[in-house]
This record gives sequence, structure tokens and C-alpha cells, in this order.
Amino acid sequence: MSNVEFKIKKKLSGTLGRAGVLETPHGIIETPAFVTVGTKATVKALTPEQVESLGAQVVLANTYHLYLEPGDEIVRDAGGFGKFMNWHGPTMTDSGGFQVFSLGVAFGAKVRKLSKVTQNEIVSGDEIDPEDQAGKLAKIDEDGVTFKSYKDGSEHRFTPERSMEIQHNLDADIIFAFDECTSPVAPYEYQKQAMERTHRWAKRSLDAHHANKNAVSKQGLFGVVQGGRHRDLREESARVLGAMDFDGYGIGGSFDKDDMTTAVGWVNAILPEDKPRHLLGIGEPEDLFGAVLNGCDLFDCVAPTRMGRNGTLHTRDGKINLRNAKFARDFTPVDSECDCYTCKNYTRAYVAHLFRSNEMLAGTLGSIHNLRFIIALVEKMRAAILDGTFDTLKINFLGRYHKKIKG
Amino acid sequence: MSNVEFKIKKKLSGTLGRAGVLETPHGIIETPAFVTVGTKATVKALTPEQVESLGAQVVLANTYHLYLEPGDEIVRDAGGFGKFMNWHGPTMTDSGGFQVFSLGVAFGAKVRKLSKVTQNEIVSGDEIDPEDQAGKLAKIDEDGVTFKSYKDGSEHRFTPERSMEIQHNLDADIIFAFDECTSPVAPYEYQKQAMERTHRWAKRSLDAHHANKNAVSKQGLFGVVQGGRHRDLREESARVLGAMDFDGYGIGGSFDKDDMTTAVGWVNAILPEDKPRHLLGIGEPEDLFGAVLNGCDLFDCVAPTRMGRNGTLHTRDGKINLRNAKFARDFTPVDSECDCYTCKNYTRAYVAHLFRSNEMLAGTLGSIHNLRFIIALVEKMRAAILDGTFDTLKINFLGRYHKKIKG
Repeated sequence: MSNVEFKIKKKLSGTLGRAGVLETPHGIIETPAFVTVGTKATVKALTPEQVESLGAQVVLANTYHLYLEPGDEIVRDAGGFGKFMNWHGPTMTDSGGFQVFSLGVAFGAKVRKLSKVTQNEIVSGDEIDPEDQAGKLAKIDEDGVTFKSYKDGSEHRFTPERSMEIQHNLDADIIFAFDECTSPVAPYEYQKQAMERTHRWAKRSLDAHHANKNAVSKQGLFGVVQGGRHRDLREESARVLGAMDFDGYGIGGSFDKDDMTTAVGWVNAILPEDKPRHLLGIGEPEDLFGAVLNGCDLFDCVAPTRMGRNGTLHTRDGKINLRNAKFARDFTPVDSECDCYTCKNYTRAYVAHLFRSNEMLAGTLGSIHNLRFIIALVEKMRAAILDGTFDTLKINFLGRYHKKIKG
Repeated sequence: MSNVEFKIKKKLSGTLGRAGVLETPHGIIETPAFVTVGTKATVKALTPEQVESLGAQVVLANTYHLYLEPGDEIVRDAGGFGKFMNWHGPTMTDSGGFQVFSLGVAFGAKVRKLSKVTQNEIVSGDEIDPEDQAGKLAKIDEDGVTFKSYKDGSEHRFTPERSMEIQHNLDADIIFAFDECTSPVAPYEYQKQAMERTHRWAKRSLDAHHANKNAVSKQGLFGVVQGGRHRDLREESARVLGAMDFDGYGIGGSFDKDDMTTAVGWVNAILPEDKPRHLLGIGEPEDLFGAVLNGCDLFDCVAPTRMGRNGTLHTRDGKINLRNAKFARDFTPVDSECDCYTCKNYTRAYVAHLFRSNEMLAGTLGSIHNLRFIIALVEKMRAAILDGTFDTLKINFLGRYHKKIKG
């Protein structure tokens, strides 16, 4: 009996979509759910109470970052990252794989970021030789990865077993198997080799996890499907990992923007239906609709908070940048239909003033709004699955959201 | 009948100290009270609800900064700075004088900052010629001051009438007469000339204020006592301004650290007893005790929040810097006797991690703690005046607070 239990409440007929409930040791997550990112055991610019007030159900921290600072043993001694940061609800940590690789390899331009591309922007790059995959900062071998810290250049090594050990110390409710996140511009042969290695690492992660009875008693382990942009590899990865005893699945790596939704469908058609699926690194409204329709239950992304700190805010009519001069005397809310703290209490003129003045509260108010906007959108998707109005929601929302951008 | 009414509740026998209540259009302020600084219509790193939860009763914004950004007319159109920033309690603005002068003159080292030295650190400097008083960025004449913006070098001009006009636009409950804040290293003759000009400006401020019936109906005006470090000048300033029809008094300018308390006593022995007195720019515990004992009712200072953002936090046993390595594994609260949100929910290890990681929440948690520490201290002073235990409080608090620093 796993400590992480998933129940489907309703399926969206004719699609892979579903609404469910994911039980964790620190509470339930009603799915589909947007997972709030708290990289270093803090959702940037927000208190946990502010995060909770947005309807956030779960916080995901990054293993790579917490390992480097303050160190997973300090987090363990503090009682795990949830207790450390004063977040009492469900928690997740990623495997550390994405940061290790993304800081060591060049990612291609024109390729949709999809995986755990949550901490680093994809940098433009020409096609790279797969031998460069391990790049300057990370070297891959069958056993694991040796990499240099982005902070001080010191050398470190992650293996599946080490990733499990660190994630056990961080003590999140849901943890991820150690995976290789390939560059989207790597050729087919390399993608295949890397995927097969990821499968072996998945098995080793599972074994290492099961060897720790204390961890098994309170942490669920998700495997991570890879395979790049290739249908046969994605389907093979879903089959191989789907046959392993994971509590759920992450879908990592990169896809082309146009085929993301399709590719997610390939994977979810094969993954066990009764297990939750987490699409890593997704947070734009159109992608969320596609992912939900194609059977994903969880999504995380730093985009809402990063944009929120930079002054780019979601509205029902598309994104606006509050640094634009036209907002200096705009005494209306950021989005007059939004129920968030920022929209209920402040004007665009005020928030714009904070951004121009580089005041810290700007990032707080921007993050509150963008997170609430995305969380509320996913809440609406769930409600629409339950009452059978998903198509209407999608058409109405995206029609209006994109109108302004294109118009 | 003024819209700002002060009532003394109890005097501290044998001293100038008193506890009182200051009524303003946006609520009462129980004095002595620490005034929280919200420079640009935001208390840095905090929401107004967080500020209120600390026991803060009143927020002071800086006229100079709001005039430059976003501009006082935008703040006026937003309904005043309190409404603009979503702070519903009492508000104050300073005259703009301090920033105008402090950005144009060299302040001396070894001199206690006292006046509105709230936005800029005093820079070390040799004795300067009084003719340099107007410095590179500010030029003083009888009518007012021409200065250059610290932001873009653009030229601006403040006069007493203009300061009133801007402060009427900002619409705080309590505003200040335009004053010249002299360099503490300026010679006696210059201090005397500047003080006399400040008295003429005080009269012009009063006239300009009274000419605006709408403003008079909802804003109280405080005069600002100057006179540098000279007893005769301070006493003369208190006499001249005390005879004018102000709703209260600010005490500005700089004193030597050692004679600050004494000098404040000279002034308050002369100022009308029934009017509130605001000592500008004070926020260290020992100074607060001295100021309260010598008859001050209000104090403002950016030190608690500035230190809080930098990792220097008050404790009952003196200040600590959380960036110190010894706190990395300290799982106790910042101050185990403190009732603030930070101390109730987080460990030194966690807050230290946030500071080392340059996370925005570090500044928020640090500011919450330091502000609550100072506000709670002033609350205790008020209670001690009311129940006759002020001396005990002072001895016990300062004995312990300084023990660690000196020991």
C-alpha cells in the first residue's frame, strides 16, 4: 500500500483527460493541479501563507539547488523542506537531473522547453555534437553524472542512489527518479541511448528507494518518461517505466512546441491510467489546456512567478507589461475579473509604480497575481471536467486570452 | 478645531516623558509610537497587512521620493498615498527638505544622524565650507531650493509653498513644514542663518497650508525645530516655532550621539506641552529610551527595515548578523521571546539560508522581525509609563541588550 494514492473522479469523454484526487502524507491534491515551484525551499517573494491563500495545493523544491545550498543534511535536520520553509501541505522534489544537465549542455533554439526547464532559460544554440552532451560542466557515464556547481565551480557527483539519498533527506511527499534530460537538438541515436540509460537509472532509483523503509513509508516515487521528440522512443519509455512499480510518472525532456500536446498524448495513452502524471515545466495557459486534455494531472513551472517578478502579468485578455508607460495612470485592477489579493487591493498604476521603483513588493504582488491566475485557471479546468463543460471553457478562455496578443 | 488632536494620558514624573493619544482622520495613534517608514508608498518588502500585524499604527512616506516617482499628481489622482498603497490607518509625509539637502551636501562623520536621515546614510566628510552647503546638487536661496534629481539629474525646485502643494496632493494626515536640514559640520553662524530661514519657511508653510481649506480640513501640519548642536539655537527654534499655530512639532537636524538626549530635552522643555513631538530619524533602542524620557511622542527610522533586509536582526541580547556561519545549523528562532511571525514560524537556520541565497523572503522576514521588535519595545515603554515602571524596563532591557555587544 503506497502512501501516495491516486483516484480518478471523472474522465473527460473522448479524451485522455480526467479529474482526480491525489492523497499524500501532508494532504490531498485535487487534480488537475498546478504545482507551485519553491526552488530553494521558498516560493520567491511569497510567504507560505500567501502561497496557500492562492489555492496552491503543493510546493515543489529543486533537489539540485537545495543540495548545493544550504545542503540536504541541514534540511534533513530541520525536519525536511516543508517544515524548514513553514509549508504544511503536500511537497515534491525533482530529481536534480534537469539542473545538472541544463547547466552543462547547450539547448537548442526553436524547441519548446518542456521538461524541468524551470530554473534556466533555454539558451539558443546551433546543433551540437552528442559527444558534447556532457558539455563543460557535466560529464555523464553509466553510473551517474559528475558536474560543477553553478555557484563556485566545485565538483559534485549525482547517481540514482545519491539522488534518492538527497531526496530522502529533503523529505518531500513525492520524489522523482534520477533521469538524464537530453538536449532537444541531440540526434536520435543519442536520445535513444540516453533514454535507455534513464530506464536503468529509474530501476536503480526504485531499488534505492525501496531499500529505505523509512522513506518508503512516507514518500512516493515517480519515474520520469524521456525520449525527446520521437514517438517510438516516447512510447517505449512509457511502456518500460509504466511496467515498473512507481507511484506516478513525470514527463520530462523537450518537445517541439507544436507537437507537445500530441506527444504527451502518446505517452499518456500507454502509462498506467490509475497513476498520476506530472508534466514537468509547463505553465502557459494554452499548454495547460492541451496537457489536461491529453491526460496530465500535475504541472509545475516558474514562469508565473518569474514573469510576475518582472512585471509581465496575465490578464483574461492576454499578458501585459506593467512597465509600459500607459499604465502609470491606470487606476483599474490588473485584471478586473481576478479574485486575487493584488487585484482586490491595488491598481495597475500602483503596481507599475512599484516595478519602476524596483520595490520588493512589486515582485510579491506580481507573483500573487500570476500564480492565482494560473491556479484559478486549472481549478476551472477541473470544475469543467467534473461538470462536462471543458470545451466551452477552453474555447472561451483561449479565444479571449489570445485575441489581444494577435489583434 | 484641528483634525489632529493630542491628549496626554499620563506623565512620567520627574521627566518630560508622557503617554498620550494622537487622533487623526484615519484613526488614533497611541504614543509613544514608532512610525513605520514607507518611503515610496510601500514599506519595503512588506504588504500593508503585514505592517498592520506588527502593531504599526502609522506609515510615513517621503515627499521627495514620491514627488520624483510616480509624481504627486498621480498619487493625488489615486486618492492620496494611503489609499494608493492600501494602508488604511494614519499617514504622514515629511517635508522633502532632508532628502533635498542630504543629496546636495556632505555630512560629517562622527556625528549622530538625527533628523530625517532616513533615506541616505551619512557620508563621512571633512569639515566643509558653509558656502558649500548648497553643494553640487542643491542651491539654497531665501525663497527655496533648486536641486537635481538623484535619479536622472533633472532640475527641480522646492519652496515652502511647493512642499505644501505636493504634500496636499500626497494627502497624508500629518504633514511637515519645509525646513533646511543643515550639515552637522556647518559652523555656528551658518546654523543660525539656516535656522532663521527655516523659521521664515515655517511661517510660509503655515500660511500656504491655511490657504487651502480642503487640506486644513483633513491634514495637520507640524513645524520642524532645527538649530544643529547648539543649545541657544535649539531653544530659540523651539520658542519661535512653539509660538506658531502648528498641530505638532518635528525635531530635525543632527546632534552628537552623546548629547542627543540632552538636546531633545532642551527643545521639549520649551515646546508647547499639549502638542505632539516627532523626533525625526531615530530607531535604535537606546535612543528611543532617551527620546521618550525627554518628551518625544513619535519616532521614525529606516534602520529596522534596512538592517532587516541586510540580515542584521535585533534580539533581546543585542544584534546578530544571520550571515554569520554559526547560524547555518541553528534551529532556534531569531529571538525566542519575540512574538513576531518570523520568530513563531522560522528558525535562524532557515532565515540565514534565505539571506545567503539572496531570496526576497529574507528581506520580508528580517523586516517583520526588526519592525516588530522596535514597535513592541515602544509599546512596552508606553505601558511602563502608564503603570510607573519605566525605569525598570529601561534598566532591564538595555542591560541585557548591550551585554552581548560589549561582552
